[in-house]
This record gives sequence, C-alpha cells and structure tokens, in this order.
Amino acid sequence: MPTYTPPARDLDFVLHDLLKVGSLDIPGYDELDRDTTRAILDESGKLAAGVLAPLNQAGDAVGCTFENGVVRTPPGFADAYARMREGGWMGLDADPEYGGQGMPYLMNCATGEMFLSANMAFNTYQGLTHAAYSTIHAHGTDAQKTTWLPNMISGQWSGTMNLTEPQCGTDLGLIRTRAEPAGDGSYRITGQKIWISAGEHDLTENIVHLVLARIPGAPEGTRGLSLFIVPKFLLDDDGRPGPRNAVSCGGVEHKMGFHGNATCVINHDGATGYLLGEENAGMRAMFTMMNEARIGVGLQGVAQAAVAYENAAAFARDRLQGRALAGAAAPERPADPIIVHPDVRRNLMDQKAFVEGGRAFLLWGASLIDRAHRGRDADAEGLVSLLTPVIKGFLTDKGFETTVLAQQTFGGAGFVRETGVEQFVRDARITMIYEGTNGVQALDLVGRKLGAGGGKYIMAYFELIKTWCREAAGDPDFDAAFVEPLKTASKQLQQAGMYFMQQGATAPENALAGSYDFLHMMGHVSVGFMWAQMAQAARAALAAGEGDRAFYEAKVATGRYYMARQLPMVATHLARIETGAEPVMALDAESF
Amino acid sequence: MPTYTPPARDLDFVLHDLLKVGSLDIPGYDELDRDTTRAILDESGKLAAGVLAPLNQAGDAVGCTFENGVVRTPPGFADAYARMREGGWMGLDADPEYGGQGMPYLMNCATGEMFLSANMAFNTYQGLTHAAYSTIHAHGTDAQKTTWLPNMISGQWSGTMNLTEPQCGTDLGLIRTRAEPAGDGSYRITGQKIWISAGEHDLTENIVHLVLARIPGAPEGTRGLSLFIVPKFLLDDDGRPGPRNAVSCGGVEHKMGFHGNATCVINHDGATGYLLGEENAGMRAMFTMMNEARIGVGLQGVAQAAVAYENAAAFARDRLQGRALAGAAAPERPADPIIVHPDVRRNLMDQKAFVEGGRAFLLWGASLIDRAHRGRDADAEGLVSLLTPVIKGFLTDKGFETTVLAQQTFGGAGFVRETGVEQFVRDARITMIYEGTNGVQALDLVGRKLGAGGGKYIMAYFELIKTWCREAAGDPDFDAAFVEPLKTASKQLQQAGMYFMQQGATAPENALAGSYDFLHMMGHVSVGFMWAQMAQAARAALAAGEGDRAFYEAKVATGRYYMARQLPMVATHLARIETGAEPVMALDAESF
Repeated sequence: MPTYTPPARDLDFVLHDLLKVGSLDIPGYDELDRDTTRAILDESGKLAAGVLAPLNQAGDAVGCTFENGVVRTPPGFADAYARMREGGWMGLDADPEYGGQGMPYLMNCATGEMFLSANMAFNTYQGLTHAAYSTIHAHGTDAQKTTWLPNMISGQWSGTMNLTEPQCGTDLGLIRTRAEPAGDGSYRITGQKIWISAGEHDLTENIVHLVLARIPGAPEGTRGLSLFIVPKFLLDDDGRPGPRNAVSCGGVEHKMGFHGNATCVINHDGATGYLLGEENAGMRAMFTMMNEARIGVGLQGVAQAAVAYENAAAFARDRLQGRALAGAAAPERPADPIIVHPDVRRNLMDQKAFVEGGRAFLLWGASLIDRAHRGRDADAEGLVSLLTPVIKGFLTDKGFETTVLAQQTFGGAGFVRETGVEQFVRDARITMIYEGTNGVQALDLVGRKLGAGGGKYIMAYFELIKTWCREAAGDPDFDAAFVEPLKTASKQLQQAGMYFMQQGATAPENALAGSYDFLHMMGHVSVGFMWAQMAQAARAALAAGEGDRAFYEAKVATGRYYMARQLPMVATHLARIETGAEPVMALDAESF
Repeated sequence: MPTYTPPARDLDFVLHDLLKVGSLDIPGYDELDRDTTRAILDESGKLAAGVLAPLNQAGDAVGCTFENGVVRTPPGFADAYARMREGGWMGLDADPEYGGQGMPYLMNCATGEMFLSANMAFNTYQGLTHAAYSTIHAHGTDAQKTTWLPNMISGQWSGTMNLTEPQCGTDLGLIRTRAEPAGDGSYRITGQKIWISAGEHDLTENIVHLVLARIPGAPEGTRGLSLFIVPKFLLDDDGRPGPRNAVSCGGVEHKMGFHGNATCVINHDGATGYLLGEENAGMRAMFTMMNEARIGVGLQGVAQAAVAYENAAAFARDRLQGRALAGAAAPERPADPIIVHPDVRRNLMDQKAFVEGGRAFLLWGASLIDRAHRGRDADAEGLVSLLTPVIKGFLTDKGFETTVLAQQTFGGAGFVRETGVEQFVRDARITMIYEGTNGVQALDLVGRKLGAGGGKYIMAYFELIKTWCREAAGDPDFDAAFVEPLKTASKQLQQAGMYFMQQGATAPENALAGSYDFLHMMGHVSVGFMWAQMAQAARAALAAGEGDRAFYEAKVATGRYYMARQLPMVATHLARIETGAEPVMALDAESF
C-alpha cells in the first residue's frame, strides 16, 4: 500500500520564502503568517494522510456501484466526507456571509493538494461542489444564494456541472437539452447529460446540478445557452429537501481510473430548473468559474505527481539491486539500494524537479486569482487568465508523465496493483482530458489569451521575467545556472509569440499547429521562473545561516537540474513551431 | 469496441520498397517475393483481425483466474490457440528439422505485429514459447532438442522463462533458487520465481519452464547460475506428458493491464530439472535469446501504437465538434469532423509518423538478425546487438506514448473502457518494464554495446548513415527535408558518443547519467534514417509513375513531418547529456 506524507515544509517554503504571502498587498493575506498557515497545513495534512489516503486503494478496487438508479460510493467515503464536513474544510475559502471561512483561494489550493494526493477521486465530490458554489455565488440572485449556498458550503449538499451531451463535449454550441418555461418562473428541463462527475452518490442529502440548456427560440450555438439550477430534491417551504425532482442517474461509466468518483449519465425528464443569471448568458456564467476549475485540475496533476514521486523515492532507497559504479555503497548488504544508479537518479530528479516547481507555479497562479478577485485587480485577472490554460495543460501533461516515471522507478512492482503506484497513473490520466482537453487549452492560449487586451498580458508576463532577471543578476554562478537559461528560454518563447503574431492574420493555421508546443514552452518557462526564484530564496536563507541547510541546498540543486535538463525542451518546441502548419496539415483526412 | 485492420500494404512497403528483401543476400530471402509475403501477411492478418482481435477486450475484462492451483485463460483463448496451432503460425520461423516452417525471423515479426496489435496478451503465450524454443535450440543436446522442440513448435506445449525472484529482477546475481544434483543426471530445483509470464494456463498439455538456478558450490553472482529445463509434467517413456512435476503456480498477479496473460508465482519444490547447456553458463544461454526477446518487446510497442492510432484516426474522422478555421468542411452537418483541427492533426501525425517509422526500424532490426544468424555474419550480429536496446527501449517508450496520444484524440471517450483505447495504454505500459526496464536498456547500450568490438559497430552505424546521405543527396528539396536533418542529427549523436568516450575512463557517471538520453537520440536518428529511406523509395515510385500515388505521397509527407517535428528532440537530448552527472547526482539519498 502506498504511503502519503503531507509536504508541509515544502508548501511552507512556497508560501513564505517564494511568494512571501504575509507581505503581499492582497486583502486577507495579512492573516497568512507562518504559524497560521502551518497550523492549517498540519491540520489538513493530518486528515489527508490519516483519513483519506487509507481509502484510496480500496476506492479504486471497489469503485462506485449503480443499481436501480442508486449510486453507492466506495466503503468509508461517507464517513470520511462527514469528517471533512465537520472540519469545515469544504467552505475554507467560501463567503462568510453564507457560512464560509473566508480564507484566500490560495489556502484552498495548498490544502487541496494534500487532499488530492491522498485521494483524488474522493476529493472531487467537494471540488465540483466548490465550482457550483462559485457559479451561484457570482451569478445567483440574493434569494438563490440564500437558498442554495449555506448547505453547499457546509457540505450538506453537493454540486455538479451538467455540460456534456453525447453529441458534444468541447463544442457546447451543439447542446440539445431543452428548458421550457413552466409559467411559474421555473423551467422544465429535458435532455441527457453524460460524463457528469459526482453526478449521483450517497454522500449528501441533496445534489445541486447546474445545467446548460436551450430555451425555445434561443439563438443557435453557444449564444443560445442558459444555465439552470436543477436540484435532485426540490425544496419544501422550509428550504429542506422535499419531493424528488425529475432528474435521475442512468448509469455510471466504467473508466480507466478515477473509480471512486461516480461519472454519471444524468437524465432530465422535465425536471424543474431555475434560471441562474440571464437568459442566453449561460456560457458567460460558465466562464466565471472556469479559471478556478482549470487551476483545480492543474492541482490534481501536481498532486498525483507528488504522491507518486514520494513512493518512488522511498522504493528507490529501499530496493536492493546492483552496485554503485564507484564501489559498494552498502557493502554489508547483498546489493546497493537502486538510488545509487545514475539513471534511477535521473528519473527521480525529473520527478522531484517537476513536483516542486509545478507546485510553486500552481500556487503563484492561485495567489493571482486572489489578487484579481479579492484585490479587484484587472491586470492580475488578465495575467491569470493567460496562465490558466498553461497551468491546466502543462501541469496535467507533466503530472501524468511524472506518475509514469514514478511507476518506472518501481520496475515490475510498478505494474502490479498491490504497490498502488499504477493507480496514480490511471487516476492522473483523466486530468489531461476533462475541464477542456489539453489541446483545447492550447487553442484557448494561442487563439484567445495571447491576444487578449491587445497582447498586454503576455507583454506583462515577459516584463515580469525580464525585470526579475535584471534585478537577480550579479553572481556569476547564479547567473550561469539560473538567470541566463531563463533569459534564453524566455526569449525563445517571445520568438514563438512573434511568429504567431506575424502569421495570425494571413495564415492562422500556422499558429494553431504550434499551439500545443507553445503551451509547453510557456509551461517550462513558468516553472523555470519559479525555480530561479526558489533558488534565489534558498540561497538567501543559506547566506543568512537560517534553519535547515540541507533543505535549502536541495532546493538550489533541484533548481539547477530543472534549468539544465528540462529547460532545453523550449528550444525544441520553438523549432517545431517554426516549421509551421504545412507538415501538420499536408495529408488528406483519408490518408490517415 | 475497437477495430483492427491489418496494415498489409504498409508492411509490404517496408519489406519490398524499403528493405528490398527479395534481393538481399541472406539465405532464405530469395523466397520472399512480393506475392509470397503478401499471401502470408493476408493469411495471418485474417486470423489476427477475425479471431484474435474480437477476444481482446473481453480478455482484459475477465482476465486470468486462479483457483486451487489452476489458471484459466479468458473465454475464447483456448479455441483461438487451437486455430493458431492449426495454421502452423507458432513454428513459422522454427527449424524444419523439428517441424518448423523455416521462414526468416523477419516474417515472424511482420506477422507478429498483427497478432500483437490484435491481442497482445494472447500472443505472449506463444511469444514465450518461441523464446524457450530458441534457447533450447541453441544450447540443448540433440536428445533434448528431439525431446522438447517438436511439441513446442507445433504449439502442443508452451514455454516460459523463470528468472525473477522476489529479491531480484535486474540483478540476477542475487538468485537463490537451488539445483541439487539428484544423482541420475537430473537436478532437484527448489525456489520461488515471480512475475512469470504465461507461467501457468489451460492452453497446452504441457509447459516447459526454463529456470535459472544455482548448483551447490557454484561461484557467487551471475557466474554461478545454470539453466534448467523444468517441465510441468514429466515425460513418460513415449515422450508424452506423464506424472506431475513438483512445480506449481502459487497465484497470479493483479496488474494494471495485460490481464489476458497469466503473470504467475511459480514454486519449485524439489522439481525435477535437466541442465541446459553447461553448468554455471546459464547467463550466457539467456543472452542468446535476449536480442530476439527484446526485439519482440519492441514489436509489442509498435503493435500497440499501431492499433491505437488506427482507432484514433477513425474517431477523428467520425466525431463532429467545431468548425475548420478556413470555414465549414462539412457544411451539411452540425459540425466538422475533428480531424480538420490543426492540433488534432498534430496529434495524429505524431502517432502516424512513429507507427510507420518504428515499424520500419523494427523490421530492419529483424532483417539484421536474419543476416547474423542465417548468413552467419558477425558484423550484422554486432550491429543488431548495438541496436537491440534502442529497438526495445525507444520503441516501447514511444509506443506507450503513442497509445496515450491516441487516447487523447478520443477526449473523454478515451477514458471510458467501452471504446477500448485505454486498454492499449494499460497493455503497452508493461513493455517499458519487462525484458529489462528501459533504464537497463540504456545502461546496456552505453555501458556495453557502444564500446563493443572497440567501438566498431557504432562506427559502422554512423558510416551507414553517412554513406546513404552522400549517395542520396542531389535534389535540393529532398536534401533540405531529409538528408540535411539526418546528417545534423547523426552528427549530434556522434558528439554525444564522443563525450561519453572522453568521460568514460575518468568520470563514467557522466556517461551513465546521459544513457537514457543517448538511447532516445539513437532511436530518433534510427527512425529518421528509416523515414529518409522510405521517402526516397516513395519518391522513386512516384517518379516511375507506379501504383497508388496517394499512398506514396503520404509516405513522403509523413516522413517530412518526422524530420521537421520529431528529429529536433535530438538536440535537446544532447544538451542534457552535456550537462554531465553533476546535476543528476547532486543530492543525498535522504534529500529525495
């Protein structure tokens, strides 16, 4: 059975040494001193490691069952859910006006990483609730907020997003689900939704579905979509769950992984729904929560990588095979632990450098969300909108890749279910697909985000890196290992952006054919930027003679590794991009 | 349910347009005219698509069951096995003296790709039998060969390789299984073997285990290992299976994939075994079959990629989402097929370029095996020994990666089990691990194969490419697209090799820290070499006005794609290698 050790020290480092959250000018951040955040991280870490992690493997083996319209979650999930509820974790960053704790979104991500590492399938029930909460909070009337939010924040009720239908996933303009006015202000919703995560289960007394549907006479395509609140149980006059609504689960999917989360067919058969926001403005309402939801999926990628890496490192220290090149490292034992072998190291360093760098990138993004929302900062909003597809796409691609590397560390033991590492691979795989496939993220990045605000956000991003490089430079060793590689990679990213701009008007296919490579370039530059700053912070701590030297030295060494061995990928992506669309589009569809 | 269409036309192209097998000076190749190979490919393709493929998904869902020491294979496997036997496919390249058909190994690989694409788990029962056959054929006495081979070739009996034990996988020197002389020339074998593929099943009337064990008093480490024939049933005086031997199955593993193949714990409790080859020469005997076995695993990587790609391409032509950038491609339908989108194309082109290029590389390797063995050509033996870790490591890494890309083409439909594409991912994953993990392949390549024969085989490899480049050059368009990129990549590979040579004596860790990158560099250069030659052949056919223009044009376009968008990876790998071991080895084991 895999282990899980909450990375409290690493999270602490990112929050305070890298982001310096206590001194950031963001409402609510003044409360985030080291002791406070540590207490929150310790408490949530205990729950993650002690309660959620032990349920993960059985949750995968048993999965969710479906019988006579009823979905049962795996053994232990209901009790663990009650524990999460009692701890108030579900409303950690929710609006205090409706019973939330009002903490920054950043802390939701820091604690969320641990919950997700411990048990991703379990944690997604509340993740979906959070997404639904945010949407109602942003677009609901006061009455709707009072009706629905308190019980969602407390975890008594859960939430879902009902978007996909059999004929449409990415292309929501094809949605057919109908919403007929009932004459009393409500609507009758009819249609089938599929792949609805947490769509039906036995964890809460009600489920609040948010459903995209089309009102008769609405324009075609996405401009004719409206969003509706469709509860599993209609509320009685006291606001308590009453009669069953005409919404039901038609079955659960059998999937590669993520078995503990019920992925449901949801049938709406004239179900009662309440319009959320304006008519035909459903897509706009969806977009509100999309940045957060996508960052949340990026977090899942980091979290699966983190727990897989922890187990791979432990295995590599424990498993005895062969001898170190320079002579036996453990002469008293029949063989040396495999961590002595350079290629095993290479594998572990790739994992470690991604996990720690990806975590930093994610939390930087989360702090920008807080700056945008709590600080009402439009520039931060623009910057995080630009970064969101990178956070989602890059961190889930690399997160999955890292679980595969961790599995490889285990050799044959990684392929058998017993060790649990193969589950991380299967669970991580969904993160590259849902909440917009990573190809869609790349399209969003290059097709919409790069040019947003006349390109001012991407310019601000480059300016940020340039300014940092200028200010950080001075020490030859640090410059060679960190500043120069970051400068080079950043310039290559700019060059790719220029190429797209030049092509944009006349040959837009040249931009889109390179979109995936651009997303990965920007991911590497961003994580490289994090590593450069983390190394700077660690060097400063070392120079000041602070605390745990080995910890800071490892940060610098891991950062050097990332810059030396991962950042060169940026050049390859640029070379690919500059070949344009011709090689990509040369064949007829029939030639595939 | 996934489809499978045998790639007969593509195999035909590789055999005759690329390798020109009919004119190669290798014994037996003179029979390989286009009509003969086509008849063989058509016949085996029919069996693969019609009999094996329909059993693949159920084989995964049901898997192998273990009860009271008995292993049952999935429904339909036994009947299909009988069909394979009747068709004589198991002895296709086996020695006619013992009932084989005596075809080249090349044809075993060409037909094997189809069997493996259709049903990898099923086909591995006979794959292991083939490995055991080869070992007995190379090292057995005449009496042993007469006793064991005919029934293995006919498929009446199967074979296994018993190497791994709980405390040792890669490091076979730690093997503890004992072989005590029984006094009658036989031995009593005692010990536990694990992860034995096809170790126990209900497909054949006997199972011939080849077991690595240690005779009392033997030297420590691998130099004290001997190889034994240990049948499940001892033979009676007529050579028919008689009393049960003291070898039994202790259980089957629960795995990520590859469920249709029984991965067994095999307990030897004083089982009767017969020495195969010399005492303490067990490792040498194992090495004999290792090239073939590793090439066979590389083939599994290509085969899983091929069938996954076929299904992804079909899905992309069928699934309607969004509109083409230049305007609707299918205005009469609600949306365009997703194959119009540049990023979907990028994904499919990566798949296609790998599948066709990887297939060519594999079959080139197989033809070198024939040249080495049938032609008794030591230079070919040296070259294919050098290429073997690349064929195994690169083709399985990229094969797995390609199944993941194919799954991504499917979006959400790729994560549900119904479409079958996620099974290819889970099945392909084992190929990176067994028969020596890919890290061990890289170690073999850099630590042993590069320097073999004083470096003459790697020099011959470079010379081959250089000569081809010189002779192929002349047409500016072809040079720019193929010759120059291949030259550049080959020079970068040489530069990496030089770096290793310079470091070898003083700082061998610098070589081993870059071994994995070197393996991938060499994989790309080799597949690039194949594409350059395939494009040359296709251009020649086009110039001659031969046959199907669209087919040849697609070959040239796909080759251009590989050279433009995959080959640039070689530079990144070189950059990594030249950072040396320092970043890789910087941390203490405790810092992970």
